[in-house]
Amino acid sequence: MRFLVAPSGFKESLDACAVADAIAAGIHRVVPGAVVDKVPLVDGGEGSAKALAEATGGTLIPALVTGPIGAPVPSHFALLGGPGPRTAVVEMAAAAGLRLVPKGHRDPASTTTYGVGELIKAALDLGVDRILVGCGDSGTSDGGAGALQALGARITDEHGRDISRGGAALIGAGAIDLSEVDPRLDKAEITVACNPHNVLCGDRGVARVFGPQKGATPGQVEQLAAALDNWAGLLGGDVATIPGGGASGGLGAGLHALGATLVPRFDVILDHSDLDARLPYADLVITAEGAIDGQTPHGKVPAEVARRAKKHGKPVIALAGTIGADARVNHDVGIDAYTSIIAAPVELDTAIARTAELLTDATERTLRLVLVGASLT
Amino acid sequence: MRFLVAPSGFKESLDACAVADAIAAGIHRVVPGAVVDKVPLVDGGEGSAKALAEATGGTLIPALVTGPIGAPVPSHFALLGGPGPRTAVVEMAAAAGLRLVPKGHRDPASTTTYGVGELIKAALDLGVDRILVGCGDSGTSDGGAGALQALGARITDEHGRDISRGGAALIGAGAIDLSEVDPRLDKAEITVACNPHNVLCGDRGVARVFGPQKGATPGQVEQLAAALDNWAGLLGGDVATIPGGGASGGLGAGLHALGATLVPRFDVILDHSDLDARLPYADLVITAEGAIDGQTPHGKVPAEVARRAKKHGKPVIALAGTIGADARVNHDVGIDAYTSIIAAPVELDTAIARTAELLTDATERTLRLVLVGASLT
Repeated sequence: MRFLVAPSGFKESLDACAVADAIAAGIHRVVPGAVVDKVPLVDGGEGSAKALAEATGGTLIPALVTGPIGAPVPSHFALLGGPGPRTAVVEMAAAAGLRLVPKGHRDPASTTTYGVGELIKAALDLGVDRILVGCGDSGTSDGGAGALQALGARITDEHGRDISRGGAALIGAGAIDLSEVDPRLDKAEITVACNPHNVLCGDRGVARVFGPQKGATPGQVEQLAAALDNWAGLLGGDVATIPGGGASGGLGAGLHALGATLVPRFDVILDHSDLDARLPYADLVITAEGAIDGQTPHGKVPAEVARRAKKHGKPVIALAGTIGADARVNHDVGIDAYTSIIAAPVELDTAIARTAELLTDATERTLRLVLVGASLT
Repeated sequence: MRFLVAPSGFKESLDACAVADAIAAGIHRVVPGAVVDKVPLVDGGEGSAKALAEATGGTLIPALVTGPIGAPVPSHFALLGGPGPRTAVVEMAAAAGLRLVPKGHRDPASTTTYGVGELIKAALDLGVDRILVGCGDSGTSDGGAGALQALGARITDEHGRDISRGGAALIGAGAIDLSEVDPRLDKAEITVACNPHNVLCGDRGVARVFGPQKGATPGQVEQLAAALDNWAGLLGGDVATIPGGGASGGLGAGLHALGATLVPRFDVILDHSDLDARLPYADLVITAEGAIDGQTPHGKVPAEVARRAKKHGKPVIALAGTIGADARVNHDVGIDAYTSIIAAPVELDTAIARTAELLTDATERTLRLVLVGASLT
């Protein structure tokens, strides 16, 4: 029996590779001769550069960059292996992720993506043909202004002075000058892998949807929304509403102004995971994420895996720590069955600390239920 | 598709009938045309009289009896319906259960089974041929002395005075006189449904195993053990070690001295549930209990259901609130697969309050996994 194990990582707990390993261990307990094809998946957020480097036989390049609150942070980007154009993966969370913002500094009005621009420059230094920018898990809402500045853009106020760091300062931005932007960007192609549901401005814009969870107060949210409206006007075009323009606090919009292409994340990321090529060989697909709920079909890994598996007519089971509200909608996108890895009343912190063990045990229980079904016919 | 749903109740949460209903609701969500045969099961403890009355089309007879701490409590026993000898079910927990002992009075050295004897007398008043005494969930450790006194036995100390209430007083018991015991017991047969693993005396005796959970301190446990040793000597024969003699704080041993037969509980209780007769028609058996763990094979409902199902070659799935330590041993007794009803990290109290909903949702998830298995072949 052949299993395709294609999970996401579990936030704050296990990365996708470790999740896949834990599930595989459970499979082998129940089906000793099982062939398990592990395809750990990432969504562009935290851990994506490392995972894509591993998946393609590439390398991870360390770099010291400006962190989201201005202090330097050790970061990295990936140089992918394999054929095709020489490609770097810049994971924005590795330079400006929420995890890099100390709890007391969680103010998206003041954090910057400057380090993301520095990572892009470091990738250009290696002569890459293509830079894939992974969005997600950001701790910023500066519309990508910091990244643009790091790449040579000048953003000035009405007095011609450079604006300061962070999203709030964009309210005073009066002009943007791209004449000094790194000329290597004329040749290298930038692709931004983003959730197309994220837009820069309006009621569903990045300030109002993500501001609160990045630490903004209601007043700050509205200030930020106004600042990003001003920023969108300066960048011009349809950047206020372009799909993915709101990704990572507007980084998508900023890079779009430099000529980057915004692409639905799984369309580009799964290309490097070989998922579609491996699906035909699977008898059963197992995916997983921290939670399965009504939001899962909107761009989360398990739904994306299920949609692709269904093109090959493959059954899909999803494992999750939390089965949340409206999870049943996932049957419509091809998840045939889902279950929780939780085996008893337990506190969240305890469950998070034991995720690997819970995943393995739950996989065992799940497959025994599947085998009961197989025995019925 | 035909389902046999044969669960236990969930302690402190839902009785077996409500558990069966909740599971059935989940089945109908996934398999609309399913035939669901519900056989809610009891183990002789709390709720057993009511459940057996319902299962046989019998009636529940109210009675006011002496409670475990001496104050009167409203109680009841069952008069079973159906063919065969006229049978009453006296559930000891309805007259001397732990739930009837207020938290501040949880001292098994002083609580009495007197009310159990009163229930037996009330059943004799109705002219029954047979009395089935259900053990379990007791709040007493008086070796059944109270029940015997209520039925006319005299238990006296070395001065010929009646001993006082409770297990501790048995240390002073010097003689037992059965000459005035209710003469109707000569004709009516008493069967005690007990867990045969429970014995009266020794290291695995009732004082040492159950005394602590009934509220006894370590010192009280040893006093009680000595008192029950003295009581066993007085009753004579092999009562100290007879299987089931320790059931319900030694009620089994006391009633044995009146000529009662001690029978493994499921051998007698399942006769009234018709489980064996219904098993041949099931495609899939679903059982449930609050916890599935290493103790389950030692006389718990899911294991008993599985053993009987396996005689008919039927697949068995068990649902539980908690999957506990060493649960895997249950595969050896015929539980093919088990799963938890918990769907996310949650507190025990919250889970208990939502058991019915969790059971229905978990049954749905479980059957979807089974159907994935059925689709594989």
